[in-house]
Amino acid sequence: RISWISDIIVVVSPENIETMKSIIEKYGHKRVMIVKGGITRHRSIFNGLKVFAENEFSNHLLQKPEVVIIHDAVRPFVEEDILSKVVMAAKEHGAAGAIRPLVSTVIASAADGCLDHSLERARYRASEMPQAFLFDTIYEAYQQCTDYDLDYGTECLHLALKYCNTNAKLVEGTADLWKVTYKRDLYAAESIIKDNLSQQVCVITNVKEAVAQVGFLLHESLKSQIKVEVVSISLSKNDSYLQNIFSGQCYNFICVNDKKYAIQETQQLVDMLEKSNIPLLYPVVLILVHLDISENISFSIGMEEITRIKKFAREVKKKNILVYGLLIQYK
Amino acid sequence: RISWISDIIVVVSPENIETMKSIIEKYGHKRVMIVKGGITRHRSIFNGLKVFAENEFSNHLLQKPEVVIIHDAVRPFVEEDILSKVVMAAKEHGAAGAIRPLVSTVIASAADGCLDHSLERARYRASEMPQAFLFDTIYEAYQQCTDYDLDYGTECLHLALKYCNTNAKLVEGTADLWKVTYKRDLYAAESIIKDNLSQQVCVITNVKEAVAQVGFLLHESLKSQIKVEVVSISLSKNDSYLQNIFSGQCYNFICVNDKKYAIQETQQLVDMLEKSNIPLLYPVVLILVHLDISENISFSIGMEEITRIKKFAREVKKKNILVYGLLIQYK
Repeated sequence: RISWISDIIVVVSPENIETMKSIIEKYGHKRVMIVKGGITRHRSIFNGLKVFAENEFSNHLLQKPEVVIIHDAVRPFVEEDILSKVVMAAKEHGAAGAIRPLVSTVIASAADGCLDHSLERARYRASEMPQAFLFDTIYEAYQQCTDYDLDYGTECLHLALKYCNTNAKLVEGTADLWKVTYKRDLYAAESIIKDNLSQQVCVITNVKEAVAQVGFLLHESLKSQIKVEVVSISLSKNDSYLQNIFSGQCYNFICVNDKKYAIQETQQLVDMLEKSNIPLLYPVVLILVHLDISENISFSIGMEEITRIKKFAREVKKKNILVYGLLIQYK
Repeated sequence: RISWISDIIVVVSPENIETMKSIIEKYGHKRVMIVKGGITRHRSIFNGLKVFAENEFSNHLLQKPEVVIIHDAVRPFVEEDILSKVVMAAKEHGAAGAIRPLVSTVIASAADGCLDHSLERARYRASEMPQAFLFDTIYEAYQQCTDYDLDYGTECLHLALKYCNTNAKLVEGTADLWKVTYKRDLYAAESIIKDNLSQQVCVITNVKEAVAQVGFLLHESLKSQIKVEVVSISLSKNDSYLQNIFSGQCYNFICVNDKKYAIQETQQLVDMLEKSNIPLLYPVVLILVHLDISENISFSIGMEEITRIKKFAREVKKKNILVYGLLIQYK
């Protein structure tokens, strides 16, 4: 996703290596190498760094980078902006890390389980990820640190300070960098993904006037809530405008037609979507609207149409495309 | 909800007092008094405490309690267990508060925006709510504390320590005590409520064998995932068994019948639900299943039935009861 990152080392516990391999393959991730994790956080990170410096972990030693970013997989919403900020700061200061304001006051407890003292909240920050380091700095810190550090420590910035005398630059991160820790955080993460996916909808109609008009009206009524693209085309030809929309990260499509059995055209759209790799990352929602404005409206023919769409939907769901059918009969 | 709490003081910012009054009225909350908040956290809490000691805030002075609990409205999932624990600890130690392990390392930053030092995570805790105090202790602390404390402080335990030399007892709280802070936390909170609401479903059928059999089969297929109660009754008489279920905090009902136009019976169930006050706190979900096993199945009659249920659903939605209709035609 980010071109200036040359290699990605994923440190994985031994029992999850096969799962991780299949994920990398399934989603076609490039520049990724898997390394076996250790029994603590610091030992795992150290294993990851060794790839660039020692031969034992890899047959082909990767080129040692100037700057290395350390990140947690439990913080899935990391933007290029914060990555670039910590990298630039690390180049200048030797180390840098994202921080956030404290949400709760932090206190120290005494041995008897009572309050010893509380910290003034404004003076402290939560240390988050990503963090970035000059490779030589953090690698030296890990080489020099004690077994106690490796077993009980949690903070890379602390190692850089203690063993390389490097005071990390602290960079304010976004709220989305929080650590997905509890079950409720999974729902929160889901809500953020859904928010991002529902930014834009593309309405595709064929070129007939009555149908194109529906697309226009949809645009009018939706545009205050969501970015709407309207395309009136014959789906049978490969449209470059549509290709642009596919590359623009649109995940929602409404296809309006007035022909029965338009599955073939829809199949074409599905093929285009599949080729664009959009459904690889997130589910694409495709709403097929069939306008029936004929004189002889019959419930059972409508039901046949819906049944056909249901069957089609089951098929393309495997490709991570969710098809919904809407039949509008109008006299 | 908790009988041993004698009074609840809700401290509200001036612009939200009317909203809070209407909430208290709508949900029939008892033992609640509203007090105007101050411009900082500590000033608001102090205002709340004054109700028990000064005449200016209230015409009828409430009886001074031995122990007072301080809680944040942004932590909606507080259980009786933790409340009772902090109260008992406050009786013994003078002050007590809920704590949680730190999720991120806490660091101190220097004036230049660089790391000064990081705290050893295991030695510190996040201070959460609820907290409890001997009333005289916390009130004395607020009376003695400085304007600086009132304007910039955040921690009640700190005031009790500083001004009354009281080392609060720290009590491990549950993860659900977290502070709803960001938009994503609203989704997380929603997920917790939904989890709680979906613990139990009640299947109600009439006494005819074919229909009662459906209830039995539903029970068989659902019982591994959810607690299922099955009741086969004629809804026309008031059933005490059903009353028990209503008082047992069940929020999900599936009503199976084989009669057309069963809206009248359903209306009776809705009335019983309404009288039970269950829909006051959370929405009740009521799924009406109509089994049509007659010889002459007609789509349009089915549609009429569905249309009738839709109209009924719109009506009872105002009572916080969500009705869904399912029509099963089976030859």
